[in-house]
Amino acid sequence: MIQFADAAALDAALSRMSAPDEAALAAARDRQHQLTKPGGSLGRLENIALFMASWQGSARPRVDRVKAAVFAGNHGVAARGVSAFPPEVTAQMVANFRVGGAAINALARCCQAELAVIALDLDRPTGDIASEAAMTDAECLAALNAGAAAVTSDIDLLFVGEMGIGNTTPAAALCAQAFGGKAADWCGRGTGVDESGVARKIEAIDRALALHGPFCSSPTETLRRLGGREIAAMAGAIAAARMLRVPVLLDGFICCAAIAPIVAAWPDFTAHCLAAHCSAESGHGRLLTRFGLAPLLHLDMRLGEGSGAAVAVHLVRAALAAHNEMATFAEAAVTDAL
Amino acid sequence: MIQFADAAALDAALSRMSAPDEAALAAARDRQHQLTKPGGSLGRLENIALFMASWQGSARPRVDRVKAAVFAGNHGVAARGVSAFPPEVTAQMVANFRVGGAAINALARCCQAELAVIALDLDRPTGDIASEAAMTDAECLAALNAGAAAVTSDIDLLFVGEMGIGNTTPAAALCAQAFGGKAADWCGRGTGVDESGVARKIEAIDRALALHGPFCSSPTETLRRLGGREIAAMAGAIAAARMLRVPVLLDGFICCAAIAPIVAAWPDFTAHCLAAHCSAESGHGRLLTRFGLAPLLHLDMRLGEGSGAAVAVHLVRAALAAHNEMATFAEAAVTDAL
Repeated sequence: MIQFADAAALDAALSRMSAPDEAALAAARDRQHQLTKPGGSLGRLENIALFMASWQGSARPRVDRVKAAVFAGNHGVAARGVSAFPPEVTAQMVANFRVGGAAINALARCCQAELAVIALDLDRPTGDIASEAAMTDAECLAALNAGAAAVTSDIDLLFVGEMGIGNTTPAAALCAQAFGGKAADWCGRGTGVDESGVARKIEAIDRALALHGPFCSSPTETLRRLGGREIAAMAGAIAAARMLRVPVLLDGFICCAAIAPIVAAWPDFTAHCLAAHCSAESGHGRLLTRFGLAPLLHLDMRLGEGSGAAVAVHLVRAALAAHNEMATFAEAAVTDAL
Repeated sequence: MIQFADAAALDAALSRMSAPDEAALAAARDRQHQLTKPGGSLGRLENIALFMASWQGSARPRVDRVKAAVFAGNHGVAARGVSAFPPEVTAQMVANFRVGGAAINALARCCQAELAVIALDLDRPTGDIASEAAMTDAECLAALNAGAAAVTSDIDLLFVGEMGIGNTTPAAALCAQAFGGKAADWCGRGTGVDESGVARKIEAIDRALALHGPFCSSPTETLRRLGGREIAAMAGAIAAARMLRVPVLLDGFICCAAIAPIVAAWPDFTAHCLAAHCSAESGHGRLLTRFGLAPLLHLDMRLGEGSGAAVAVHLVRAALAAHNEMATFAEAAVTDAL
C-alpha cells in the first residue's frame, strides 16, 4: 500500500511515473491480428484490450478483481447555496451506500465490482474556498493517503467515485486554476441547481481563484486550497494506481477535476486511465478534451458516485472476453482476408 | 411461435402493430422520480428502463432471458468480388460459432445471452441481385419464418446478428431502395474491401436497383429481390418480436438494413427497438438517422454477428439494475432536492 510522507512526496512521485509495458502491448497486438474477425472490426474494444495488456504487463489481461472506491466529504462552500440539495444529504447518502440502496450499489453489483465507501470527516466540512483554504496541510495529506490506501496492486481495474454536496463548485475551481478559462466555462448545474444557484457558484469560484490562484504552486497545493477531502482522496487513489500500474476508469466531472492540477503539470498522467464516459455536467467534455481522452460512453449521466465508470466496466469485460476467448484463424481453420 | 402463411401475411401484420404499455410506462416513470438520485441524473439509463417497462408491460422490467439469434447466408453477388473474404468463410465462421470461438460467442457469454446459430442453405447462395432476384417467393418466406421461429414471448430482450460474406452489398441496395440516395451513399468497406472492391459494390448495387426498383411494391418484395436469406430472417425475427412485444436491440448496418424496407413503409416499426451502436460501416449512421434512433454506443465496431448489440446488453442490465434495485428517498430517509 502506498502512503505519502508529505505532499512533496506525491509531487516527487509524479515526476517519475511508471510506463506501460511495451512488450505486453506488442504481444497483445499480435494476438489481435490473428483472431477470427476482420482486423480492427471490434473498434475501440480492441484498443481497450491493448490498454489493459500494456498496464497489466500481460498479453492476456484480466478483469477479475474490479474495485470501486467511493469517497465522501463535506464542503464549507455549500453554505453559499451552490447545490440543489442540503449538506446533510452527503451523510444520508453514505448511509444509503452502506445499506446498498444507491445507484452505485446497484451498478457495482451489476458489474461485479467490490465497493468500498470511505467517508472523510463528514462532520467537519472543509473551509469555504471563497474565503480560506479548503484544507490544512495535514488534512490534505490525510485525504490523499485515504485515497492511496484504497489501492492495492492485486486490483485488475480501479474506479473512484464521490459524494459531496456542493462539490461541483471546488471541482470547477480546480479546472479553471489548472487549465484557465472563466468560472462560467467550468460551471454546470450539478445536481440540478437553478440559474441563481449557478450565479452563486460562479461568484464563489471567482473569489476562490482570486484568493488562492497566486499560491497554487504545485498540484497538491492546488488541491489543498481549492479542493475537498473526497476530491483529494480521488487524486491520491489515481496517483497510487499509477505507481502500482493499476489501470483506472475515470468517472465524471468531479473525478476528472480531482486530477486536473496533476494533468496540467504532467500531461502524461492519464496514460493509465480510460475515460469511462462524458457527463452531462457541462465542464466534463471540455476537461476530457484537455486530457486528450475520448470517453467510451455518452449516456448523459451526471450522478457521480462512480456510476459512469461502473457502466464502462462492462465494456472492459466485453473487450477482454473477445481478446482472450476468441479463436485464431489457424485454430478455427478460417481463411483470412484475400 | 409466429409463422407467416405468406409474404402478404407479414405485410398485413405490419399494418396492425402492437403498442407499448402506457400504464407500465407511467408507473416506471413515477418510480424513477422517487429513486435516491437527482432527477434525470442517470441519463439514457433512465430512458432504457422506461423503454423496457413499456414493452414488457411491467413497472419493474427484467432482463433475465436474453436471446441472440445469429443467421448465416450466402450471396450470389459475392462472385462479383465485393468482399475482402472468399465466400467459403461464411460456413467456416458458422463452424467457429458452433465451437464457441468467434467474437459473438465470447460477447454473448459475457452478457449472458443464449446464442442460437441458424445457418440458412449455405450451399445454395442467393441469386446475384445485379442480374436476378435474390430469392423465390418460397425461399424468402422460408427465411422470414426461420427468423420468426427464433422468437418466443418468454424472451426479455432479443438481438439478431448475421454472417454472410458479401452481405453489405445487398444491405446497401436495400437502404438505397428504401430511402433513396446513390449506391455510394450506402456503400462502405464492409470487412475491409479496397477501392476497386467498393467500385464493384457500387456497380452491382446500381444494376440491382435499375433491375428491381420498379417492382419493389412491398417490404417483403423488396427483401425478396434485393436481400438475402440471413437478411430476411433478421427482418422476420424483428417483426415477430414486435408482434410478441419482445424488446429488441438492433445491431449494425446489416441488421438495420434488413428492416429498412419495413421502416420506410411503417416509420413506427422500430418503436420496440433500441439502436445498440453506430457501426463504423459508413451507411449505418445515415440509416439510424432515417430511423430516428440515437445509438447507445459509438465504439467504431464493424464486425456484425450481433457483436455491437451484445455489448449494449450490458447497458440494459445496468439500467434495470439501477431502476429495480435502488432505494427511494422515503425508503432511505434521504432529503429530496430543495
